Amino acid sequence: SNMAAFVTLATNDSYARGAMVLGKSLRNHNTSRKLVALIGPQMSDPCQSALKKIYDDVRMVDVLDSGDAAHLAMMKRPDLGVTFTKLHCWTLTHYSKCVFMDADTLVLSNIDELFDREELSAAPDPGWPDCFNSGVFVFRPSMETYGKLLQYCTEHGSFDGGDQGVLNGFFGNWATADISKHLPFIYNLSSIAIYTYLPAFKHYTFDPKSKQIAGDVHEASTHPTFLLEWWTLYSSAVVPMLQDMYGDQPFHS
Amino acid sequence: SNMAAFVTLATNDSYARGAMVLGKSLRNHNTSRKLVALIGPQMSDPCQSALKKIYDDVRMVDVLDSGDAAHLAMMKRPDLGVTFTKLHCWTLTHYSKCVFMDADTLVLSNIDELFDREELSAAPDPGWPDCFNSGVFVFRPSMETYGKLLQYCTEHGSFDGGDQGVLNGFFGNWATADISKHLPFIYNLSSIAIYTYLPAFKHYTFDPKSKQIAGDVHEASTHPTFLLEWWTLYSSAVVPMLQDMYGDQPFHS
Ligand SMILES: O=c1ccn([C@@H]2O[C@H](COP(=O)(O)OP(=O)(O)O)[C@@H](O)[C@H]2O)c(=O)[nH]1
Ligand SMILES: O=c1ccn([C@@H]2O[C@H](COP(=O)(O)OP(=O)(O)O)[C@@H](O)[C@H]2O)c(=O)[nH]1
Ligand SMILES: [Mn+2]
Ligand SMILES: [Mn+2]
Repeated sequence: SNMAAFVTLATNDSYARGAMVLGKSLRNHNTSRKLVALIGPQMSDPCQSALKKIYDDVRMVDVLDSGDAAHLAMMKRPDLGVTFTKLHCWTLTHYSKCVFMDADTLVLSNIDELFDREELSAAPDPGWPDCFNSGVFVFRPSMETYGKLLQYCTEHGSFDGGDQGVLNGFFGNWATADISKHLPFIYNLSSIAIYTYLPAFKHYTFDPKSKQIAGDVHEASTHPTFLLEWWTLYSSAVVPMLQDMYGDQPFHS
Repeated sequence: SNMAAFVTLATNDSYARGAMVLGKSLRNHNTSRKLVALIGPQMSDPCQSALKKIYDDVRMVDVLDSGDAAHLAMMKRPDLGVTFTKLHCWTLTHYSKCVFMDADTLVLSNIDELFDREELSAAPDPGWPDCFNSGVFVFRPSMETYGKLLQYCTEHGSFDGGDQGVLNGFFGNWATADISKHLPFIYNLSSIAIYTYLPAFKHYTFDPKSKQIAGDVHEASTHPTFLLEWWTLYSSAVVPMLQDMYGDQPFHS
């Protein structure tokens, strides 16, 4: 197959709201690619329905119930629960190339040119720039890679307890092998950078054509501009849809 | 010529003490390369003498007095004083390849293999990882490059007001062109990383053979281990030498 998709993950209703805003932001910037959401069994029906309005493809991932290799892996490493769910994106072999985005990210422009990159492309993490930030990455679904990832996970665990540690361990030559797999930092702008090196932030984001993704719009240090953008989308596009889905049921916006 | 040298800069007595500790740390780790210090006219005689005990080559750089292109450049951009002095390292054409190190850095192991890299190699800056940190970099002295740097400086200034902004502007394709010019982050370990992403710090510095430079050992967030290493070298190797040089003159260690 030759299809390309943006993929996100939301195991519960709070991350679902993030995924809705992310999906809306991708649509608003006229992506020509498919939108896929991996969801967890705890998600409420109204949230599932709202996601289905925005995403082309909403898929339930239940690692606990799967009885497959992922289930076995998770029995050995119960600490890595959500990580195993995230790795499931490699099973989307219906698509040839994907861009994974955390549910708490937001696109600020059309970023379809990311599909020109190869697995595993990602932006540097400002906390340790020889690691990539796993909030946004380009990958190729493959059952073979999926199997190897699960095996790596069970054997080595995660040095930081999350998916970023696992993925940086597995794709361990990212820092040294191929510069084209280094996405520009603005593709996953951690808001921490705005505060630690403001002159660079101003210098490199000044170009209004520069492509940007706001990473982790909910972390404490997030820039007000990104937060405002998130809440604007949420209240104008997501809340009305949720009101629709919940109908008479109680619902907190 | 085929000579290689570590180069530092100290315009005054406080940075001179840093340069002495840096020089000692390079000697203690048995570097086979030459040590060069660029100094400024404000430096006291005892400090100059102490530097000459440690460095092979101590050179006075007086941009204000030079009457050359650098002087002219600085008249146009007086805000970039120390930056112009730092750029002088490109005039060291007696050496074919050099590693510049800020006076407030410290090597924790032999790092002579840095001379296998080409201009301009440097480690990512954690504040904005698509910029390199200009505290440690590999370069090739060249009067042609020096002239272009001065011209760039006067035309574009520095986006952060210092040498890091100028050098990142001039070597503007560092983030995208050649992965071999990305020094491992541990080659210029900003102590901020220890606090922002501790699991990565532990994971990547665990290997006792890993090469490390402590960058900016005096910034507020510096790890106690680096500070202790600095003070140990300073009090055991530098203070006795300064006492010698100052003789009966008053001197504060
Ligand atoms: O309980 C959880 C935790 C995480 N996630 C997904 O995993 C991503 C990464 O987790 P999070 O943003 O909490 O991690 P951090 O940004 O702190 O690394 C989220 O954006 C979601 O897409 C999820 O669906 N459910
Ligand atoms: O007045 C000065 C300021 C700086 N420097 C040199 O320039 C380097 C970078 O300056 P600094 O360490 O103050 O900058 P920062 O680490 O804050 O970027 C120093 O380590 C010194 O080598 C100097 O010789 N005199
Ligand atoms: Mn997040
Ligand atoms: Mn410094």
